[in-house]
Amino acid sequence: MPTDPHAAGLDALAAYFRGMPPVAAMDIAIAGFDGDCLRLAAPLARHVNDKGCAFGGSLVSLMTLAGWGLVTLRLQAAGLRADVFVADSAVRFRKPLYADLEAAARLAPDAGWEPLLDVLRARGRGEATIAATVALPGGGDAARMTARYVAIATG
Amino acid sequence: MPTDPHAAGLDALAAYFRGMPPVAAMDIAIAGFDGDCLRLAAPLARHVNDKGCAFGGSLVSLMTLAGWGLVTLRLQAAGLRADVFVADSAVRFRKPLYADLEAAARLAPDAGWEPLLDVLRARGRGEATIAATVALPGGGDAARMTARYVAIATG
Repeated sequence: MPTDPHAAGLDALAAYFRGMPPVAAMDIAIAGFDGDCLRLAAPLARHVNDKGCAFGGSLVSLMTLAGWGLVTLRLQAAGLRADVFVADSAVRFRKPLYADLEAAARLAPDAGWEPLLDVLRARGRGEATIAATVALPGGGDAARMTARYVAIATG
Repeated sequence: MPTDPHAAGLDALAAYFRGMPPVAAMDIAIAGFDGDCLRLAAPLARHVNDKGCAFGGSLVSLMTLAGWGLVTLRLQAAGLRADVFVADSAVRFRKPLYADLEAAARLAPDAGWEPLLDVLRARGRGEATIAATVALPGGGDAARMTARYVAIATG
């Protein structure tokens, strides 16, 4: 039986999500990770607003966490220990989402992992720019985010 | 005894917050409203992350809701009925917050209420640009947001 090379990192991430009160309240599941893209899912019922669609704050939180998780997994895979903070984010809300939430986070176009991994190794502080989306069931996106994450070495 | 001119609107807003699952989970209280600035509070314990400070997603959600609430209150005060959506937002996370959360939302600098109220009356669709912050106990801000909200007339 093939072993998932990401299993240990994903187990740690799931435990982290369960342990953080605001994230536990979101009822998040890790929907997939292929090394480049992390997908997080959450049920609409937990995130519904007054108009029957997903609350904008929930979309931002899920995308922010997906980006945070992706950066954290890449650091773990590189054997680096660091605290990861979101530094800034820009979000566009495009269409209402009347279905369960799924956020996908990957490296932003034209960005690389070197400013995170190589610079963290050299200077103890690195950063990565992440693009995340929440897709609509019929195609297109409910929301899109670009965010910058900073990692500060802890050991 | 003087009557709070905002009491009816604030009661409706509080009921709205209680009725929306993701917002009820945040344990939000209306901390104040003077007609120009809406302040929302939430306990750190409900929003703490792995580092003992407030989760970035919670800061964004609270600021997003404060802006949404401010726009909603101004529409109600003007006697207008509309659905309010957040259209886009940009957030800077400046410092970690190790205390209870309080977000304050007001009109963005150089913005006015005319594009919301007058244009909604004339064309059935208005918008407002809101600035929100989460303050640090010792001065300065933990996070700052600028967001654009769109209101679409419902009757």
